[in-house]
Amino acid sequence: MTPPRVVAFQGEPGAFGEEAARLLLGRGPRLLPCESFAATFAAVGRKADACLIPIENTLAGSVHENYDLLVAHRLFIRAEVSLRVVHCLIAPRGRELKSIRRVLSHPVALAQCAGFFAANPRLEKVPFYDTAGSVKAIVEQRMPDAAAIASRAAAKAYGARVLRRHLEDHSSNYTRFLLLSRSAGAVPGADKTSIVFSVRNEPGALFKALGVFALRDISLAKIESRPIKGRVWEYRFYVDFMGSLREERCRKALDHLRELADFARVLGSYRAWRS
Amino acid sequence: MTPPRVVAFQGEPGAFGEEAARLLLGRGPRLLPCESFAATFAAVGRKADACLIPIENTLAGSVHENYDLLVAHRLFIRAEVSLRVVHCLIAPRGRELKSIRRVLSHPVALAQCAGFFAANPRLEKVPFYDTAGSVKAIVEQRMPDAAAIASRAAAKAYGARVLRRHLEDHSSNYTRFLLLSRSAGAVPGADKTSIVFSVRNEPGALFKALGVFALRDISLAKIESRPIKGRVWEYRFYVDFMGSLREERCRKALDHLRELADFARVLGSYRAWRS
Repeated sequence: MTPPRVVAFQGEPGAFGEEAARLLLGRGPRLLPCESFAATFAAVGRKADACLIPIENTLAGSVHENYDLLVAHRLFIRAEVSLRVVHCLIAPRGRELKSIRRVLSHPVALAQCAGFFAANPRLEKVPFYDTAGSVKAIVEQRMPDAAAIASRAAAKAYGARVLRRHLEDHSSNYTRFLLLSRSAGAVPGADKTSIVFSVRNEPGALFKALGVFALRDISLAKIESRPIKGRVWEYRFYVDFMGSLREERCRKALDHLRELADFARVLGSYRAWRS
Repeated sequence: MTPPRVVAFQGEPGAFGEEAARLLLGRGPRLLPCESFAATFAAVGRKADACLIPIENTLAGSVHENYDLLVAHRLFIRAEVSLRVVHCLIAPRGRELKSIRRVLSHPVALAQCAGFFAANPRLEKVPFYDTAGSVKAIVEQRMPDAAAIASRAAAKAYGARVLRRHLEDHSSNYTRFLLLSRSAGAVPGADKTSIVFSVRNEPGALFKALGVFALRDISLAKIESRPIKGRVWEYRFYVDFMGSLREERCRKALDHLRELADFARVLGSYRAWRS
């Protein structure tokens, strides 16, 4: 796999997406900040060779918008990376914790720090569109009584100071990101595959679909369901299984699935992340 | 089932939750508006006998916060109701469409009207915490250039005017709500059951769990997965199946599931909604 030169991510510089990109790809590629997940997907093939998008978090769950965008776009998963999320309380230099009254951050980050807010009831939670963007805002707008919750990298990106680390309620706070590009070619060492499919609305249809994997001793890592727009109470299923499409049993499982499914698409075979 | 006297719902008067409560329960019960979903659950047994919460929408998908709250609280599903969501453009009386520049609503409602905004590029989308609350805001704060997107009931509740109906991109826009109370007793005519379970992280574990239903010809209506907090990349599964626990095959299926699952709980047997 040729390493991508330009990788799009959602958020401001210092966002967790940027940190994940560096963890997966090192200092090589140039990183392109995008406003939204839709813009991040759309950048691939234009301003970027690849994009890195969050797909799930161990506390908040799946990022459903990105599951939908995977079907709307024709990109392939090339790699995954799992990032330990450490939330820091960040303020402009020279500010002390006792002067803080308001704390800006993305609503998911605020929700993951509920214990910190319970222990500090004088602090008001202010929802903001982005974690790193909240650091940018408190620094650029010189808010006198405001702090932000974001990564240490965000503090560094805006010359701000980390007042406290590990604000998160659970230490098992990880976000899994996917690297996507237009290339469908084989990834060396691929051992995990993601697919999306739908089945006829019949008794046992999902059970039979999962049977194509279970009967071949293929382990599932995840299953996710999403509504199909325009069809009431019908769902599309996303399955991650262990194995690559270079293995015959995995190809056979997929052939078998196509006998049962009314729609099936491979989203990519890639190397499972091991930290 | 004794009809509840006081039913909590999330949102301001005129919210879709209120409309769903009237559709399911008629004019009888008093409805109690609550600020958040957590407050709506917590009201049951204190200020309310029951609560009505949205669980999924055909376009936006599941309301994950409420899936998590179902496990955190010990309430039982007593009924479900499916509400056709019709989004209206609402302005204070005397205002015309051409004077509108900003449109306030809940982000999910704004997202469901993407076609309307594409056709009217001069309108700015302003995310707000609640659909009915956005009508309240434009009326009470007398915003001169603002409209809101909400239900017809919200326009009525605040004496505002519907400028346009059916702003939604898809006509198949339905939200399913659940009525919850502390009572676990039998609901007459119950024909649908919801459960939550987790399985050991082993190959084929989910397939076997779904087998307890498929092998007894019990149809699944829905499966949903949510992360288990504190356990990395492990999931809890929520399954809705057709049948009640007064039927022996359903009780046997549940006994069989308990042999395989390391956690299983019945959330309720109730009547499936038929409009």
